[in-house]
Parts: sequence; C-alpha cells; structure tokens
Amino acid sequence: MANVVQGVSSPYGLHRVLEPAGVLPQQAWRLDPDPRPWPDEVVVDVERLNLDAASFRQLREQHGSGPAVRAAVLDIVAERGKMQNPVTGSGGMLLGTVREVGPASPLGLRAGDRIATLVSLTLTPLRIEDGLQRWDGAGEQVPCRGSAVLFARSIAAVLPDDVPDVLALAVLDVCGAPALTDRLVREHRATRASAPSVCVLGAGGKSGSLSLAAARVAGAGRLVGVVPTEAEAARLRAAGLADHVAVADARDPVALAGAVGEPADVTVVCVDVPGCEHGAILATADSGVVAFFSMATSFPAAALGAEGLAADVRLLIGNGYVPGHAAFALDLFRSEPGVRALFESRS
Amino acid sequence: MANVVQGVSSPYGLHRVLEPAGVLPQQAWRLDPDPRPWPDEVVVDVERLNLDAASFRQLREQHGSGPAVRAAVLDIVAERGKMQNPVTGSGGMLLGTVREVGPASPLGLRAGDRIATLVSLTLTPLRIEDGLQRWDGAGEQVPCRGSAVLFARSIAAVLPDDVPDVLALAVLDVCGAPALTDRLVREHRATRASAPSVCVLGAGGKSGSLSLAAARVAGAGRLVGVVPTEAEAARLRAAGLADHVAVADARDPVALAGAVGEPADVTVVCVDVPGCEHGAILATADSGVVAFFSMATSFPAAALGAEGLAADVRLLIGNGYVPGHAAFALDLFRSEPGVRALFESRS
Repeated sequence: MANVVQGVSSPYGLHRVLEPAGVLPQQAWRLDPDPRPWPDEVVVDVERLNLDAASFRQLREQHGSGPAVRAAVLDIVAERGKMQNPVTGSGGMLLGTVREVGPASPLGLRAGDRIATLVSLTLTPLRIEDGLQRWDGAGEQVPCRGSAVLFARSIAAVLPDDVPDVLALAVLDVCGAPALTDRLVREHRATRASAPSVCVLGAGGKSGSLSLAAARVAGAGRLVGVVPTEAEAARLRAAGLADHVAVADARDPVALAGAVGEPADVTVVCVDVPGCEHGAILATADSGVVAFFSMATSFPAAALGAEGLAADVRLLIGNGYVPGHAAFALDLFRSEPGVRALFESRS
Repeated sequence: MANVVQGVSSPYGLHRVLEPAGVLPQQAWRLDPDPRPWPDEVVVDVERLNLDAASFRQLREQHGSGPAVRAAVLDIVAERGKMQNPVTGSGGMLLGTVREVGPASPLGLRAGDRIATLVSLTLTPLRIEDGLQRWDGAGEQVPCRGSAVLFARSIAAVLPDDVPDVLALAVLDVCGAPALTDRLVREHRATRASAPSVCVLGAGGKSGSLSLAAARVAGAGRLVGVVPTEAEAARLRAAGLADHVAVADARDPVALAGAVGEPADVTVVCVDVPGCEHGAILATADSGVVAFFSMATSFPAAALGAEGLAADVRLLIGNGYVPGHAAFALDLFRSEPGVRALFESRS
C-alpha cells in the first residue's frame, strides 16, 4: 500500500494516492480507502452520502433506472476508492460519526461526534460496506454504511442538535454560495457606497435560496430570483426572499435578460444544468460580477461569452470554502423561515 | 436564410444564427457567414487567422500532420460557418481589412482600415475562400483569404503602424490578461495598502510576459515567473521581467508550490495545458486571487480543488474583455523591451 511504502503522511492526503503517483487526491484516479488512520487523520463511519446535483443528474441520464444508478455508484467507489463521477468530475459530501481520531489530527474532532464533511467526496477516501442496499437510486441522498478518511487539512462540521440531519446536510452541502454572496455584497457596499442589486439564477433551490437570504442580510438592494417554472415561482414568492420573482429558462440568454429587466450588480448562478453562462453575463451590469456555483459551468463558455458580448464583468468560480461558511449557512437557515420552507418542499 | 426570414438584426448577432435557433452566436452550432452586411454590421476581408493555443494543440494532437490539421480547420469552418473547435470550444481571432461598413454600425470603422478582431472566432461568421493553401498546418497563425462579419457589439482594434502585423496580432490576442492583472494589482494596493506579490504560470509566453510587465507597472511587489524548461527560464531571466524565475511543471501542484516558495497574493495562469488548477491554488496565499487565462482550465477542478485544499482564495475566469485592453497591451509591448524580445523569440 502507498502509505506503507511512503512512510510519511501529508496534510493534503498525498499519502493516500495510489494512481497516478504524486498528484493530489482530487486529481487522482484511485485512492487508498484503508480505514486505519494515519497519525494526523480522522476515520469516519459513514451514514449518508449526498451526491453533487450535476453528478446525480448525469448518472440518472446515463443509467436511467434507480438500480442501474446504484450499481454505477458502487462501481465508481470500488474502482476509485472515492465517489468522483468520471464524467462531471464532481462528487458531493457525506454525513457520519467519528470512529477514530489520530493523535496528531488538528481538526478538533472526537470519537462519537456526528459530522458532515465539507470537503468534496472527490478527494475523500471512501469504502462502501453495505452495497447501498438501503438506497433506491432515485435521489441524491444516499443511505450508506462504510468508512471515510479526513486529512489534516480537511474540513468537517459537527452537526447541530436543532436541525434534522437531512436538512443540515443539505444546508452544509451548499454553504459556500451564501458565504461568497455575503462577501460580494459587502465588498460592493464598501467600495462603491451603494447597495448592489442581486440576481440569483436557480433561486428556488438550496444554494439559491440561501444566497438570496445572505444577500438581503448583507444589505443588498433589489433582489431578483429566477426560477424555471410557475410552480417554483409560487413557492419562492411565498418564501418572501426576493423582491421580484421571474420565470425564465436560464439557458436562453435573450429570454433571461428580458425576464430579469435591469441588469444586476451581482449575479449568482445556482442552476445545475449546462448552458447558463451567457444568460448570466447578459443579465449582469457592466462592472458587475457573476459567481458561478454550478458544477455544470463551462470555463470556455463563460470566458468567451463575456468577451463575445463585450461585457466588462468579473467572472468568479464559486469556491466551496470560505472560513466560517458552515455556521453562517446554518444561522441563515435558522433565522429565515422562507429558506427552511423551500428546503422542506424539496426534500 | 435566417436573416431574410427574421428581418431584424441584433447587436449580438442573433440574426446570424442558423442552428439551433434562438441561441447566441457563440453557443450556436452553425452561423450564416454570408458576406453581405446588415445595416449595423461590418464585413472584413480576412488576411490571417490566429488560432487559440489550446485549440491548435488539440487539433495537432488529434490529427497529427500539418495537412490533416489544415483539412480539419477547413471542415470545421465549412460545417459551422465559424472557427470553433468542437472539442475545446475555443477559437482565436483574426486580422483583416474592412471591406464594407453598414450605415448603422457603431464601431467607428471605415472601409480600408486594417483591423484585428478582439471578439472570439467562436462567434464570428467566417467563410474561407482559398482552401488555406498558404498555410502548412504547422503553426497557429493561419494565412487566409476569406470574409468575416462583425456585429454592432463586436470589438475590433485598428492595427498600429509601428508594430509588425504578426506581433500586433499576437499581442491583441492575449490583451485581456495584462489588463486584468493590472486591475487586480491596483485593487489589492487600494484595499490593503500593500504591494501584492504576483506569480505568473507560463511566464515565458505571450499572455504571461505581458502580465508580468503589467504587474510591475501597476506597482506589484515580488514578481515570480514560472516556466517549464531551463531554456525558457534563461530567456525569461534575460528579459528581466521577473524578480525570481522558477522552473516547474505547473501540473504538479507539490513541485510547483515548492518552486514558487512564499505563496503569491495574485496568481495568473497562462499555461495552455490542462491540470494546472490545483498547483495555482497551492501557490496562492490565503485571501489571494487566481486568474485563470487558459482555455484548458477545468471549472470543477478549480472549484473543488480550492475546497479540497481548504484554500480561501478567489478564483477568476479570465474575461478576455476589459475596456481599453488593446491599447494598454500594445503600450506595454512598446515600452517593455523584454516583452518584445520574448514575443520575437516565439514567432
């Protein structure tokens, strides 16, 4: 095994990489999921996987039936030692209980802590032990018995007592989006002395509704939420998170820009389908910023789209890590009943 | 033809889209390259295409020989009415002479102006009329006779008298990178009252050398240039654009971070090969920013990489358009002899 040969662990998990040698775990084809911790590691008894939405969508489209999707996930994890969809490149996160803590782990966890991992499954050594027999393959939340490994520089949140697990996991899965939205709104206010208008694409979803709530708390101006259907629009209106709710297909730039109206200073893309880059750019004001939080985003489509539209906008790749993002998102969830209502309507 | 049926032109070129209907030209599979201008359009006699580096690399890898690469480009343009590599999604730019200006064009061009287009070939209607017989398929600069169309919201730069065409085209092709680097350095100085250190990956190339020069002029602190070979390192040292020149494979995060040393406040990625996302993030300081200017960048690799490394860095998709970028880059080229030396060594 790589860890026996190498003899030294890395805070980034280099010692768990089996193939190809010398790359970081996320880039690796195959990791070593051995559930014995290195001195700076934590081993977790897995209870539930939460697959990335783009990954689950792709698996469902490719494999069709629930049992076939389940078999595909089992094959991936057995082959790679981690749950990383080979097509989308994305993974998800997991919930579990700390089984064992290495003596040199800096994460502050204790055996018995119930946690959610906030690093991606794409770099988390994972072994599945129950054949996913309690999962029907029809939803992205996967009941699972197995083991996972956290490195010294991993991130995990101890689960709160006052929020049901399924909801907490759903909140933590997307907690980077509201944290970055908060920062962007505050930066705009600080540097331009005005309240930015904010447009959220996919505003009825998990990351979208939290981003709307974060924008309002941070002092945004006009808040526009875009959803694909009238049914979602009705739910979003009832939640009271946006000043204006628009129904549009975010993949249709011309229709989207028309539905949004006045271009926004900050646009947050939370739609998990490909092809929303141009619409997001067209919906954004000159000198504005677009934060892409969908793993279905195409880098060249975004870069060339802005150039082709002669759009002077800043384009951000949504970074899932912002210090304090877990507590921030859970607080929004607790304090904004509209967010909770939308989460519960989707679970 | 679409333009006859539709009857109204769009500043974004919607009237040139043949398939699928209703999308923007960059997203379209096929455009109408008819060289008769709509009232707000400009038609250009093409002299030279400059293929995007990632696209050319892919074509060369897939097709091997020069004649096969040439045939592939001809096939793409005949099929799609534009030069957009179906694999990379990227295109390039072109140089030519204005043939005809529609009476309602806002671009300020006149017939006879020699120009370079600063919007991508991926959205520029193009017809090739000479079978590319003057091109051997061995380089990304393609002598070409044909016609292209600019829309009302396109961008074109009139070519300077004092810089040879080939060099001017090469500068204009990458002028977004130095312009954004300039902005990032100035923003850091304004908001944090310190001179940011800047690391450029692919610093011996066109966008890399211009970005180093832009960083210095904007008042950056320590400048690190990373190149893949000792030969390139010698040229970059001779050019005098960096304080420290490091040799490393940017696809190897651990080696790269070691070569860079102290992480940079601003990292600019100008390497046209896949797999540089994690290295760029590891080489960047917490609260720093990474600007990705390579079309080979993977959105999920960057997003998940930052999360997996628990890196609080801002990730930017390099937008090829910044107002004034063409004149800015040409001025850098004129004023920094080291930049010119590197450009000439590569052409």
